Amino acid sequence: MTRPSPSTPFCAAIDWGTTNLRIWVLDQAGGVLGERASGEGMRACMPDRFEAVMEGHLADLGAPSGLPVIVAGMAGARGGWREAAYLSAPVELDALHKGAFVVPHPTRDVRILPGVCQRLPGREDVMRGEETQLAGAMAQGLADGLVCLPGTHSKWASIEAGRLVSFTTFMTGELFALLGHHSILKDTLGEGGFEPDDPAFRGGVEDMLEDGAAITGKLFSLRAAALLSGAAAPHPRARLSGLLIGAEVAAARAMHGIGREVGLVASGTQAELYRSALGLAGFRFHVLDGGALVRRGLLDAARALWG
Amino acid sequence: MTRPSPSTPFCAAIDWGTTNLRIWVLDQAGGVLGERASGEGMRACMPDRFEAVMEGHLADLGAPSGLPVIVAGMAGARGGWREAAYLSAPVELDALHKGAFVVPHPTRDVRILPGVCQRLPGREDVMRGEETQLAGAMAQGLADGLVCLPGTHSKWASIEAGRLVSFTTFMTGELFALLGHHSILKDTLGEGGFEPDDPAFRGGVEDMLEDGAAITGKLFSLRAAALLSGAAAPHPRARLSGLLIGAEVAAARAMHGIGREVGLVASGTQAELYRSALGLAGFRFHVLDGGALVRRGLLDAARALWG
Repeated sequence: MTRPSPSTPFCAAIDWGTTNLRIWVLDQAGGVLGERASGEGMRACMPDRFEAVMEGHLADLGAPSGLPVIVAGMAGARGGWREAAYLSAPVELDALHKGAFVVPHPTRDVRILPGVCQRLPGREDVMRGEETQLAGAMAQGLADGLVCLPGTHSKWASIEAGRLVSFTTFMTGELFALLGHHSILKDTLGEGGFEPDDPAFRGGVEDMLEDGAAITGKLFSLRAAALLSGAAAPHPRARLSGLLIGAEVAAARAMHGIGREVGLVASGTQAELYRSALGLAGFRFHVLDGGALVRRGLLDAARALWG
Repeated sequence: MTRPSPSTPFCAAIDWGTTNLRIWVLDQAGGVLGERASGEGMRACMPDRFEAVMEGHLADLGAPSGLPVIVAGMAGARGGWREAAYLSAPVELDALHKGAFVVPHPTRDVRILPGVCQRLPGREDVMRGEETQLAGAMAQGLADGLVCLPGTHSKWASIEAGRLVSFTTFMTGELFALLGHHSILKDTLGEGGFEPDDPAFRGGVEDMLEDGAAITGKLFSLRAAALLSGAAAPHPRARLSGLLIGAEVAAARAMHGIGREVGLVASGTQAELYRSALGLAGFRFHVLDGGALVRRGLLDAARALWG
């Protein structure tokens, strides 16, 4: 009998977003040998700082100096580390590595995966990072369907036969923050959270499913309701969240119908809110783990390059 | 032959808004004997300053110390001069004076006209000042129809048989400002104006008339279009204006249909933009002068009280 040898590092994988980065050292089977997370996102890094930030984390993780590194996300944007030019949808999700930008480095093979753009007039769109999550979802078996990735800029992607065919970004999270911080609704909305099962959330979703076009005419009523009803008014933060998520889900339903199952990439409260909204809209859905997806997408790109 | 005697002041009329005030001294026929405008709107006045501000303007206009004063607008809001409680829609537009708040004053009869509220669940709404413009429009002959009052908080009012039946506030102007000043679109949108006949404006309106529910999914594409096409992208400020005004007009059309003529209370560039959007939506419309409307509404209330 021999003891199994300790796994050998195969690559480092980095999900380098706007505000955060996550880095994993992976073996060839995708086993996690070490990981770190930090707030050194693209916004916190000048272009000449990315390498030092990466090397700092790799040293802490004990990564060998020749370990190759695969990167996804905003590090590849203009003004990031190095610009990895967009691929143009439709794209094969298992071929992202072919468009990777090779970052000059003294000891390592470092590559940044490309984002994806959409050049349809009036529906121009871009993503960086989500395409790698989608590649991970495909590697997990999602060859056809819709994927909803909620957030500051929520994205809905349509996957057909392993290709990312089209996508739409909704400014749902950013609008919620803008209205809460800078608009006439600021005092009405106040601070703090709300329970995902708050009836005011559900009511907002239902209003938008009934008539999504009315969204800009529903916002002011949050303030009017508070003026007229005081504490008896429905929880305005919950209702606003319902209106904005409802508008997103209603538009996605109008665009795609409800015939295809939705992969929902979310966790915690956000997942509960979207589960509720998707259910009210009649979508079938299952929940996916965004961290696991991006790691899988990065691993598969690394395997295609170096495996 | 006798020379016509100079007109006698009948009342002073004040349109006291959030950021500005306008004051007229009127004779009983509505002739303007004097007028002033200033930036001493409700926001610039502490509650105990309103009387002094008013008296300063009245003195400059040579108004007698006993001249009665009729006021409309935000001076009657909570936190304004004195709160004039809302009337609840539906309301008879020629009876606003019956709900006026009598402001204690040593020498004058000073009254603030009430705003109007709407207590429909999910469609709660309020107005202060617009109801007086609507009364003026009715006095000018508009007994039935829709009235569109564009602005920071655009309002659409439905008038039937001289009554204000229902209304909806759209946060069109505020959303344009929020997105231009505080959102990720800030750099894309830049500063400055655009020509009302810019095809990007028209394209935005048409997109919303086709599918108004997609509004929150159309905003991010302004940035993506600029990223992908640079200077060749449609003028983003014009397109955003088209999307937001288009969303408003599309929602109003879905709510009311296009069978009734719209009175558009606007001037200058704003009037041109709304004329274009209303035309694309298939509305018949005519343009009304907001200043003349509020003066007429104030005059008729004054006549009913003191005439």
